[in-house]
Amino acid sequence: MSRDSIRVAILGFGTVGSGVVSILQRNAEAIAQKVGLPVVIHGVADPDLDRPRSVNLDRSLLGPDSTKLIKDPQVDIVVEAIGGVHPALDYLLAAIESGKSVVTSNKELMAKHGHEVLEAAERKRVDVGFEASVAGGIPILQALKEPLSGNRITEVVGILNGTTNYILTKMTLEGKEFHEALSEAQELGYAERNPTDDIEGHDAAYKLCILASVAFSSRVSLADVFREGISRVAKADIAYAADLGYVVKLVAIARSAGDNRLELRVHPAFLPRQHPLASVNDVFNGIFLRGDAMSDLMFYGRGAGSLPTGSAVVGDIIYEARNIRNDNRGRVLCTCYNVADPVPMEEVRTRYYLRIEVKDQPGVLGSIATAFGENGVSIASLVQKPLQQGKAEIVWVTHEVEERSVRAALAKICSLPVVHGVSSLIRVEG
Amino acid sequence: MSRDSIRVAILGFGTVGSGVVSILQRNAEAIAQKVGLPVVIHGVADPDLDRPRSVNLDRSLLGPDSTKLIKDPQVDIVVEAIGGVHPALDYLLAAIESGKSVVTSNKELMAKHGHEVLEAAERKRVDVGFEASVAGGIPILQALKEPLSGNRITEVVGILNGTTNYILTKMTLEGKEFHEALSEAQELGYAERNPTDDIEGHDAAYKLCILASVAFSSRVSLADVFREGISRVAKADIAYAADLGYVVKLVAIARSAGDNRLELRVHPAFLPRQHPLASVNDVFNGIFLRGDAMSDLMFYGRGAGSLPTGSAVVGDIIYEARNIRNDNRGRVLCTCYNVADPVPMEEVRTRYYLRIEVKDQPGVLGSIATAFGENGVSIASLVQKPLQQGKAEIVWVTHEVEERSVRAALAKICSLPVVHGVSSLIRVEG
Repeated sequence: MSRDSIRVAILGFGTVGSGVVSILQRNAEAIAQKVGLPVVIHGVADPDLDRPRSVNLDRSLLGPDSTKLIKDPQVDIVVEAIGGVHPALDYLLAAIESGKSVVTSNKELMAKHGHEVLEAAERKRVDVGFEASVAGGIPILQALKEPLSGNRITEVVGILNGTTNYILTKMTLEGKEFHEALSEAQELGYAERNPTDDIEGHDAAYKLCILASVAFSSRVSLADVFREGISRVAKADIAYAADLGYVVKLVAIARSAGDNRLELRVHPAFLPRQHPLASVNDVFNGIFLRGDAMSDLMFYGRGAGSLPTGSAVVGDIIYEARNIRNDNRGRVLCTCYNVADPVPMEEVRTRYYLRIEVKDQPGVLGSIATAFGENGVSIASLVQKPLQQGKAEIVWVTHEVEERSVRAALAKICSLPVVHGVSSLIRVEG
Repeated sequence: MSRDSIRVAILGFGTVGSGVVSILQRNAEAIAQKVGLPVVIHGVADPDLDRPRSVNLDRSLLGPDSTKLIKDPQVDIVVEAIGGVHPALDYLLAAIESGKSVVTSNKELMAKHGHEVLEAAERKRVDVGFEASVAGGIPILQALKEPLSGNRITEVVGILNGTTNYILTKMTLEGKEFHEALSEAQELGYAERNPTDDIEGHDAAYKLCILASVAFSSRVSLADVFREGISRVAKADIAYAADLGYVVKLVAIARSAGDNRLELRVHPAFLPRQHPLASVNDVFNGIFLRGDAMSDLMFYGRGAGSLPTGSAVVGDIIYEARNIRNDNRGRVLCTCYNVADPVPMEEVRTRYYLRIEVKDQPGVLGSIATAFGENGVSIASLVQKPLQQGKAEIVWVTHEVEERSVRAALAKICSLPVVHGVSSLIRVEG
């Protein structure tokens, strides 16, 4: 097939779309050298033609009609940078149906419908790039698909959400409470007006689904991911963490438990201060991996933003453009040849930090310790501190134990008349 | 082309070769799934047939004759895991000549002769994988060749040598002198009996050549790399670094100075304690990158060892096997379309830590400060400490300045009768 360029259509001219346009323009010459053909912006579709953008684009290339671009026989690669499931999914499937390779930065779409998209692409033998859907500028998916693919991956721990990492960093370094740090993140544009998606861990869960699917060659569905957000992490928990030599992070964990069994969970966690992820601060993302051959590996970088996300999209465009030039689309198809068997959260074994508010009176410690002991929960360390008004709080760190045992112990403990309540449960990892 | 397997010949059955054999055996099923065909060890060549190895290999697959394997028409991919330039280079060129894709872990060979190997491969349209030649298990080269390739890289800073990083870590955390830490590294097998290659920065310089060539799409030759080892770093320097908020690391730096001009240097450096590379300790490697789109990125992992290096080799084997299966060898050829113009060390601008031993008498400080001033070297901070026997030492940290100015100032300073000598010059980066 003789051609003089690779032609790209971009659907969505917002943050990600602008980044892609900017990179394809500014580095056009180097990209042409690397691909062996110029990579040309054929058109950009966005319903809003007039919004001010951070990048200049020839007005003749911008139009409102995605469908027209998708069907244009001159277009080789369709980039979906719209976000959300609809109409993005329909556009992607239509682009694949008309024989185009596609690139998407859409984590929600890939977490919920990646399966359909990859199967459609396999039938039409076109490429699907979704590097930008996980951890922005960090090239983790390509690394897993190719250079690390000789490994049996045993563990992935990611800090995959910049907003929550920013909030936890501010709480840690500046002693802020959650709501103060959230307001600051909103003022700076790091958090949405409605921050639920980030704060409650949905965004990280989408990314974990995608990341675990690639890392473990297993289809992972969103329903299999245990999810807990950071809105209940208190300044006091972060201070106790520091005293004990830990930092608090929102982690996304996928861990092999043998025989295709897979732990999948997103929740706040104590990480030891020496852990490679412990110093991933502010809006940065980090991914820690363990494999049977490579041993420990860590990636650190910007997980969001116009240019970092654009960097990942353009990396996929270059990969696909090389395949088109070499008439070799579908070089690596869906790699999910396993079916993961998710481990129910009750069966997960880890350690626990528990902050319990009690009446400050004799016998309290003993009755709680007994409840732990009766449920097989063994205690690694403990601190008791008086509060005001005849109350005290006791902080417990357990040894490794099944989650179901901790839950059973806490049910018992909450029923004790001397206990006001469990203020915090945070898992201790690493 | 119909085939039932991809057949791999491995030249060299030492540390790296054993790792490759181990991974191809243990993960055979998953690798076959990923490639779409079994990847089979066709033969292993090593002159020493009887040495005990960490892996079991069917004796019928092991023989002394590399040349026979290279010429075997059944072999698809030849892995060179011999090390050194000869005969490894001849073997690689012969394998390419007979139409095989090749993989090498050989940094010296690729730094000195990568050019020839890549040109030969381009003529025969076969693949050359050399991921394992830089930073072992860290997939930095593939990342630069594909997912990050939309970026204009502006800076690469690597901790690329595990031996020196181990020694500097011991000096830092345990207050050891260089020679004590070296002996310990030798006892643990982290340093060779003759440690020159590691200690004097040759190993890191080889890796920087390869890394910079890929990162900057520019042919970089070893002669263009400024190189200084760690044997003159003293315990005292490390203590001053700590006081000033820095750690001492052997860094390999490639930095764009505009217009294809490239700084290329390997030397000990002060890095700020918050720098992502500052916490890369022991034998671990780390690579910090800056690009115009992705912004800052860091990779951390094991830079050496049988399995981590084997992981990189097997990643290349899988890449090449997929290309063979798809009849698409030579998919990405040599990416060095630029010619770098190396910046002479005298013209490099950075900051400097200088420890100068002087007579403890009035006027000394003034005469040295005058020499700095006359050569345009501006001082950011300074500490004076009395030594024994009427001596003192003065530690200076400069503002950013051209290296030639520092050298001129030091020539003048060394000629002052009140100066005993310059005990240390260490560049301050980041």
